[in-house]
Amino acid sequence: MEPRILELRGEIDRINRELLNLLSERARIAVEIGRIQTELGIRHYDPVREEKMLAYLTAENDGPFSDGAIKKLFKEIFKATLALEERQDERKFLYSRDAKPETTQVKVKNAVFGGGPLLVAGPCAIESQEQMFQTAEFLAARGVKVLRGGAFKPRTSPYAFQGLGVEGLKLGRAAADRYGMAFVTEVMDTRDIEVVARYADILQIGARNMHNFALLKEAGRSHMPVLLKRGLSATVEEWFYAAEYVLSQGNGQVILAERGIRTYEKWTRNTLDLSGAVLAKQLTHLPVMVDVTHATGRIELMAPLARAALAAGVDAVHVEVHPNPKVAMSDNNQQMDFAQFDEFLSRIKGLLEPAPKEG
Amino acid sequence: MEPRILELRGEIDRINRELLNLLSERARIAVEIGRIQTELGIRHYDPVREEKMLAYLTAENDGPFSDGAIKKLFKEIFKATLALEERQDERKFLYSRDAKPETTQVKVKNAVFGGGPLLVAGPCAIESQEQMFQTAEFLAARGVKVLRGGAFKPRTSPYAFQGLGVEGLKLGRAAADRYGMAFVTEVMDTRDIEVVARYADILQIGARNMHNFALLKEAGRSHMPVLLKRGLSATVEEWFYAAEYVLSQGNGQVILAERGIRTYEKWTRNTLDLSGAVLAKQLTHLPVMVDVTHATGRIELMAPLARAALAAGVDAVHVEVHPNPKVAMSDNNQQMDFAQFDEFLSRIKGLLEPAPKEG
Amino acid sequence: MEPRILELRGEIDRINRELLNLLSERARIAVEIGRIQTELGIRHYDPVREEKMLAYLTAENDGPFSDGAIKKLFKEIFKATLALEERQDERKFLYSRDAKPETTQVKVKNAVFGGGPLLVAGPCAIESQEQMFQTAEFLAARGVKVLRGGAFKPRTSPYAFQGLGVEGLKLGRAAADRYGMAFVTEVMDTRDIEVVARYADILQIGARNMHNFALLKEAGRSHMPVLLKRGLSATVEEWFYAAEYVLSQGNGQVILAERGIRTYEKWTRNTLDLSGAVLAKQLTHLPVMVDVTHATGRIELMAPLARAALAAGVDAVHVEVHPNPKVAMSDNNQQMDFAQFDEFLSRIKGLLEPAPKEG
Amino acid sequence: MEPRILELRGEIDRINRELLNLLSERARIAVEIGRIQTELGIRHYDPVREEKMLAYLTAENDGPFSDGAIKKLFKEIFKATLALEERQDERKFLYSRDAKPETTQVKVKNAVFGGGPLLVAGPCAIESQEQMFQTAEFLAARGVKVLRGGAFKPRTSPYAFQGLGVEGLKLGRAAADRYGMAFVTEVMDTRDIEVVARYADILQIGARNMHNFALLKEAGRSHMPVLLKRGLSATVEEWFYAAEYVLSQGNGQVILAERGIRTYEKWTRNTLDLSGAVLAKQLTHLPVMVDVTHATGRIELMAPLARAALAAGVDAVHVEVHPNPKVAMSDNNQQMDFAQFDEFLSRIKGLLEPAPKEG
Repeated sequence: MEPRILELRGEIDRINRELLNLLSERARIAVEIGRIQTELGIRHYDPVREEKMLAYLTAENDGPFSDGAIKKLFKEIFKATLALEERQDERKFLYSRDAKPETTQVKVKNAVFGGGPLLVAGPCAIESQEQMFQTAEFLAARGVKVLRGGAFKPRTSPYAFQGLGVEGLKLGRAAADRYGMAFVTEVMDTRDIEVVARYADILQIGARNMHNFALLKEAGRSHMPVLLKRGLSATVEEWFYAAEYVLSQGNGQVILAERGIRTYEKWTRNTLDLSGAVLAKQLTHLPVMVDVTHATGRIELMAPLARAALAAGVDAVHVEVHPNPKVAMSDNNQQMDFAQFDEFLSRIKGLLEPAPKEG
Repeated sequence: MEPRILELRGEIDRINRELLNLLSERARIAVEIGRIQTELGIRHYDPVREEKMLAYLTAENDGPFSDGAIKKLFKEIFKATLALEERQDERKFLYSRDAKPETTQVKVKNAVFGGGPLLVAGPCAIESQEQMFQTAEFLAARGVKVLRGGAFKPRTSPYAFQGLGVEGLKLGRAAADRYGMAFVTEVMDTRDIEVVARYADILQIGARNMHNFALLKEAGRSHMPVLLKRGLSATVEEWFYAAEYVLSQGNGQVILAERGIRTYEKWTRNTLDLSGAVLAKQLTHLPVMVDVTHATGRIELMAPLARAALAAGVDAVHVEVHPNPKVAMSDNNQQMDFAQFDEFLSRIKGLLEPAPKEG
Repeated sequence: MEPRILELRGEIDRINRELLNLLSERARIAVEIGRIQTELGIRHYDPVREEKMLAYLTAENDGPFSDGAIKKLFKEIFKATLALEERQDERKFLYSRDAKPETTQVKVKNAVFGGGPLLVAGPCAIESQEQMFQTAEFLAARGVKVLRGGAFKPRTSPYAFQGLGVEGLKLGRAAADRYGMAFVTEVMDTRDIEVVARYADILQIGARNMHNFALLKEAGRSHMPVLLKRGLSATVEEWFYAAEYVLSQGNGQVILAERGIRTYEKWTRNTLDLSGAVLAKQLTHLPVMVDVTHATGRIELMAPLARAALAAGVDAVHVEVHPNPKVAMSDNNQQMDFAQFDEFLSRIKGLLEPAPKEG
Repeated sequence: MEPRILELRGEIDRINRELLNLLSERARIAVEIGRIQTELGIRHYDPVREEKMLAYLTAENDGPFSDGAIKKLFKEIFKATLALEERQDERKFLYSRDAKPETTQVKVKNAVFGGGPLLVAGPCAIESQEQMFQTAEFLAARGVKVLRGGAFKPRTSPYAFQGLGVEGLKLGRAAADRYGMAFVTEVMDTRDIEVVARYADILQIGARNMHNFALLKEAGRSHMPVLLKRGLSATVEEWFYAAEYVLSQGNGQVILAERGIRTYEKWTRNTLDLSGAVLAKQLTHLPVMVDVTHATGRIELMAPLARAALAAGVDAVHVEVHPNPKVAMSDNNQQMDFAQFDEFLSRIKGLLEPAPKEG
């Protein structure tokens, strides 16, 4: 190594040390300012103050860094400092494993999300008493503990079947009770939360409403378990923030559900983002479900992907099951009939035992 | 041409003719069935009947088409027939130019959406009286007739500034009134429609709520003009269906707004889908706006894309303008300051005249 | 059921039967025409003839179907007929399980792709003899049979390290030979195939070249095993067609590799499309590999996703391993060091046994 | 403002100033090291050295910043410093307007890309002498100066028509010469560049080959004008880097072509990313073309989007034109016939005058 370079690197080392000392001193003072601001109820972030500091520094700067580079470096310092002040305020995100290292268990009737692999199953839409009782009886006999079924249906067209509404809620509740299951169903309007909460055990927030912040907050206030589906094209980060909306209302019972994201690929209904589900297991303490029905839209893919999801360590798998999918009022091609569900079950059975510590 | 082929093609021609006659006869009968069903209030689509017909036909089929091919062909016939029955019922989509050939004009105060190029501008969030009055005065002096400003803000994080709420609505209304402008602001909860409608001239449904069907229906019932933004990753078809939710409630005053879709590209905030906006002009009769602020997130792209949108024939362009973007409470980097807006205006001026008949 | 409807449905049934007979007769004649065309070497598809038939039929049509509906129905008939003619020509796609029901095994040295789960590992780029020998020794000791390493590197910037070229090929070959492994490396130029084939056991076609049809054909002509990565945003269908380019040159030794597709999600380098990999297992007879390194770009996701891929039934998993990733010349953050690989191996071990018949 | 806060802010101001001085001093030394390294031919970026510095600093750090925060801040400093060293080396990217502020003009026969709006037109594939001569005569009579036509066709299926090859090149050349036009055609294999260069005036690198780095380099070495299409799902940044591959071989005659990117939207063949085209105009000095045929795949969208592109300031628009698209051997639905082209031309005419200084 060239001696002249070595010598100059010695200089750099000295400056690094001085920078470290100054940054630490600066941080200590900023934390003190933050403490005072919190006492006084003043917002920590003050863009005008930042503007002034940057204006001063760029006026003073005479290179070799450009003013832009100096601004960028100081903005990084401001950001790190703000993060420090906010951490001090204990404002860690409630969803994060940093805030709560142990996995949350959401207990609903006999089912425990986060306590070993679960199946959630049932028809897309609740259509009749016969349909719901047949399905619940069939599923309960196979050990499925959570019954799904839609009473309020989000439909692309206003003229498509919109669900049976409260009538459907009653049928779902009755079927679940008759066969000792928990009942999960979707809620789409803040004004419906009360009635849905009266009949269901778990409120589902659907993919299309993941960014419906009013609904998220109201679901948080309900103190019911909430099954939160990832939005059609939500980032993992946005999905966690949506959970935070519920959690921030004092409701810790959130189950995250990955159901495929929208991509250019056309041979599957959506693209299952299993990495997203694993990140949810790793970065949050919430139980995580994978919905292989909406993620694929193809029955022949559901068993392999359910195996994959369970092997990757998720807590639950969701599939749609209907006594007679060909005459179903929605999603005809992606609901399994009973024979298909039995075949599905036989193929994933080995993975329904408590998963090894993965993810 | 080989004579043997010519001869066989003669046979094909004869069969084609017979197929045509049979298909026409079949259609006439189906239309009659549909008429009776409508009288009786019976759904036209009967999957069980279709199942039976297909089962019979595949049982009878002895080639050379496979059963699958026969099924596919007859399903196409069923589909065409159902379309015929439904057209008979006049159930054209309300959004379509087939249903209403002339462009809808939405008139709000002095502004007419669909009656020559318009600008919609204002800050991301309403923050103070001074901010709103300054902005409205500045914009009104430049001929802008519609003032935007958010009172209820959809924010990814529950801890970010959520808007001033009703206080903000009052400030927006007052500023608009003072300078003779129309006022558009977002509504996010079915329960807020009443209060927002009290202060605003146009209800905005944001991109995150484009699939919030409860909100769409309620906005339809309000009979207020509705500005409907395309969802983050909604298809053009889904966007039109969302408009249909509003229209189907008897509210014909819908303005469609393209604001960029979510793609893999990272140098722009979203990807403006100008084709989507042009399709909206061609296939619907509704006025169409392009929001270049959210579509790009980069001020230097806004003038060229506004020029593009206007040259392509859209009815309005939307930009965010703030007296002092550096200290704004949201979207700091994508709001123009007043000087930037003047520069923007000078670059698009030539295209603000009534557009030639395009799109 | 209304008697008048039942009666009309009887009419429909009769017409259905007649349509079936006519369609079958038409198909038989068309197949005969196709046979003659094949003899004469004439293309089956004749758009001018189709145009004429449609013009005649729409001229004859007097409802109730619109001309558009009639065109659509007859186009479906033409399409089904063409498919029939082509099936007759045995022009099934070579990749499909219809053409070859049993899974292809690609044997390379001691490794058999398609004969039970395999691992493929090694550094992103070949950098030195020491690096390659250390890595090969380490991996061989853990039962890994296939060594990867890039000599020709596809780099976004022309100024980034482009690989050691032929020197790298020699190092890879020597390391593989010393430890009894097979050696796979990428080829990027038709002119390099000869030299790469001299040193490597498997030619890799990288994601960026999946649509480089000249390279695919030339790799087909080489009669070397080909590892074909799915393109950055290729559909599953396009990926299969790319394989067909190789197979159509008489080279049946193709391994398909899913490595994540490009989506809007930013927390992972790409989005693993495990459904795509399972479709490849189901619809083709080729062995399928999943590259968890490029699919995720995050070391903590690699074990869970490798578990998922193996549980879903893929034949091989690929990871990048480097003796000292921090000083690697590329991909510093996504290559595992030796300790990380041992940890990875311990987490997937249970799934490296021959997989159950899945997918 | 609380006096205690003001006092502490004074402290912060002092530290800011000291940080600025230290950063400047550090930068001056680093630039000197960079100068010596350049002399000695040593790479500036040294990850081992960075690792050591970070290890030292985190060992010394005793808060309040976490080690992670300290690492992040110093990495920013390293990055800014490296940028400084590299700017010093004049290693600006050749494509950038920083490196060459004035717009490059690519002159080919009578056409000048970058010297006022141009049209590029012709059939998808070259099929016959009659087809090419008819098309060239028609286009030349309307002032179109650049004739396109594919002789080597990239086709998804190996069994689809692959183009006439050299025979096609000859037809294209002859038609262009007969009507005084320039001729652009695609090259797909490094080995074909010589023969394509013999007949064509401009080498087209297609979207599927944008990441075929061997082809890019060879096209650079040819010193022929290169029309570089953006990849199916290439980022703007990757597109510019692909241009850099050509430019770095000493060939400055590159035309960038945006042709739509792959997204989830299905009503258009691709999604035109007009922002990408405008960024190409703003950030590079190269002429930019928009291909509205491939961007939309729908003839009714081509005129509005061509208007948009020209209004946004691009240098050229590309459309496919064929004397009889219904019998074309590829792309039947998206090629205009002559009447459609005349209609197209009449709708964009006003924008074919030299554009105002936009973008």
